[in-house]
Amino acid sequence: MALIVQKFGGSSVADRDRIFNVARIVANTHAAGNDVVVVVSAQGDTTDDLIAKAGEITHDPSQREMDMLLATGEQISISLLAMALGETGCPAISLTGWQAGFHTDRAYTRARIKNLDTERIESELSKNRVVVVAGFQGLNRYDDITTLGRGGSDTSAVAIAAALHADLCQIYTDVDGVYTADPRLVPRARKLDEITFDEMLELASLGAQVLNNRSVELAKKYSVNLEVRSSLTDLPGTIVKEVTDVEGMLIKGVAKDKDVAVISILEVPDVPGASFKVFSLMAQKKINVDIILQSSGKEGHKDVIFTVPLGDAETALALLEENRQRFGCRDIVVDKDVAKVSIVGAGMQSHSGVASRMFEALFEANINIRMISTSEIKISVLIAKADADRAVNAIHDAFLN
Amino acid sequence: MALIVQKFGGSSVADRDRIFNVARIVANTHAAGNDVVVVVSAQGDTTDDLIAKAGEITHDPSQREMDMLLATGEQISISLLAMALGETGCPAISLTGWQAGFHTDRAYTRARIKNLDTERIESELSKNRVVVVAGFQGLNRYDDITTLGRGGSDTSAVAIAAALHADLCQIYTDVDGVYTADPRLVPRARKLDEITFDEMLELASLGAQVLNNRSVELAKKYSVNLEVRSSLTDLPGTIVKEVTDVEGMLIKGVAKDKDVAVISILEVPDVPGASFKVFSLMAQKKINVDIILQSSGKEGHKDVIFTVPLGDAETALALLEENRQRFGCRDIVVDKDVAKVSIVGAGMQSHSGVASRMFEALFEANINIRMISTSEIKISVLIAKADADRAVNAIHDAFLN
Repeated sequence: MALIVQKFGGSSVADRDRIFNVARIVANTHAAGNDVVVVVSAQGDTTDDLIAKAGEITHDPSQREMDMLLATGEQISISLLAMALGETGCPAISLTGWQAGFHTDRAYTRARIKNLDTERIESELSKNRVVVVAGFQGLNRYDDITTLGRGGSDTSAVAIAAALHADLCQIYTDVDGVYTADPRLVPRARKLDEITFDEMLELASLGAQVLNNRSVELAKKYSVNLEVRSSLTDLPGTIVKEVTDVEGMLIKGVAKDKDVAVISILEVPDVPGASFKVFSLMAQKKINVDIILQSSGKEGHKDVIFTVPLGDAETALALLEENRQRFGCRDIVVDKDVAKVSIVGAGMQSHSGVASRMFEALFEANINIRMISTSEIKISVLIAKADADRAVNAIHDAFLN
Repeated sequence: MALIVQKFGGSSVADRDRIFNVARIVANTHAAGNDVVVVVSAQGDTTDDLIAKAGEITHDPSQREMDMLLATGEQISISLLAMALGETGCPAISLTGWQAGFHTDRAYTRARIKNLDTERIESELSKNRVVVVAGFQGLNRYDDITTLGRGGSDTSAVAIAAALHADLCQIYTDVDGVYTADPRLVPRARKLDEITFDEMLELASLGAQVLNNRSVELAKKYSVNLEVRSSLTDLPGTIVKEVTDVEGMLIKGVAKDKDVAVISILEVPDVPGASFKVFSLMAQKKINVDIILQSSGKEGHKDVIFTVPLGDAETALALLEENRQRFGCRDIVVDKDVAKVSIVGAGMQSHSGVASRMFEALFEANINIRMISTSEIKISVLIAKADADRAVNAIHDAFLN
């Protein structure tokens, strides 16, 4: 007898058969004596279809009206799933985001949850009902509907699990857990039984798109045990929690991120404040700078080299060109043909030799390293985009086979 | 400067072009200096599509979940219309039924409005915004979404007009007003400039499907001036109000109703309570009995003959057969090949000769009258279904040309 939150994404409720598959999983969990809260996203392509409808009307829709529109997607899913549960003989009731008590800030299309009033959910649970909650949405203090942004349903599920002190929050997806690398890319990739929140965060931010980052941060903050598992098999998935068994495998995964560009500002006069000027410009435009490398170039000059998300590269370049006079540099160059490949694992820094083993694997694969970045639990290298897949396999072979 | 409520049905907002047509009408009304509240239904076939989705899941859906599902239809319409108004340069905000303050009883799928809290609507109007409200829906005292049943958006519009003491409630439809008869059937049918609530109610209940009856009853109760007009032309429509100019045309319209069946209980012993037994049975099953005719048959016996809605005929027959012993009748017969044709006009009873002119017109068209029913403002005759269209034309020619 436990309290379990289960979250199902849009593809898991895309049609009648998949809705009944979800109903079966939920009903079985309930029949085993558990209290169950289910969080669902909009069906399949519904959100995209709604965005297209708005696009026919205007290219610059009011964000408030977009949220009003998009929130219907989950409302359709919850009612259909509640009906399917009823048909399966499992008592269930659906709740929209506002009925479930989600209060958010006023930032339409990317709202943040401020608090969750669990009174209604708890009242329905006490009647032995499965509670089916619309993910991705809430209500701001003007009583207007807000949405949490793409992937927000994961966050909704974790928020409910945190507020109800649930024993487990299961995130059902198309994959059956978190892998040591992308299984489509690395045939020998293995499913992890456990991973820590921090490792999961690094993997997610490095391009392993299994869990929404905000949801992992929230789970870490409130110590919510997460499980990533497949709605298509009955196999156990991967548990994400605070501390995992650190014996055994040290490296948890290899990830690649192709959404990256390198900007090189060459031959900046080597005086204090040069880097500050560059990065305060980036900060003003909310461009995330990741790896930074500052090297000495010609005498009295240095090169400032850093990575930005691929989509921000042109904006960053234009901004730097505008302010070129202030840097006094010789040239500004953008390279988009790069990728970042990383290994992630808690406690890695305390184990010597991890970095050198990674570099050795790349050397043996004849892959040139352009930049290196390390943290407590990851080592990232920047390489040519064309080498990315080979690099992931080489590193995976070196650590995980 | 007035306060005007405008209601647009599903076909008026079925696609992008029609939404912008509605936006144009609304924006013009607002630009002319009026406060405007707009009530819209779900787009085109959306409601039917949602019902079909539910039908894939279960044939016996929870009514609460049906309302949760169906309410998304209007929510999509209001957001798209608010976007179109914004694109047109007209300030607008959309409100769901619950945001607009609609409180209903708990009867899912056919809820009745209990009260309307106009605070939010008035607050938005005071900001010079057009308020776009989702018709057809409200919230019950459990904070659950309810719907008002088909045609409920008319009722929503009239309820807002009543609560805000609006100067006019315009119901936009596919037709450009209320006609003296169905124009598809009677080529010489004419549009009425004015009609009273009571006349409109009789016409609606007699099969002229222009306005939802509940909305007319509500408009009469709160003296809301209604106008029925077309969203496809800029012509004035028909004003529905308490008292119209009774000079000029006396007869307002001719209507036919094919949704009717006659049940004849033959040779019931002529003792007190016979009719009571029959009609209390009908009342128990909520079957509406319309025309009743009780004639003397053979000595000491009578025939009890009455009409019911066609869809209830079999239920009524089965019920009567079950209780046949109690009536002691000779036979029970149902005839579904009938139609009711009526003329409607306030003050008709005080004008002699109306009935005889109607019967004369039918006699000249060689149409046999089976039953007759009269009220303050209408005369109905029951005839063979095959004669219905000829009867409508004959009566229309006699009174309205």
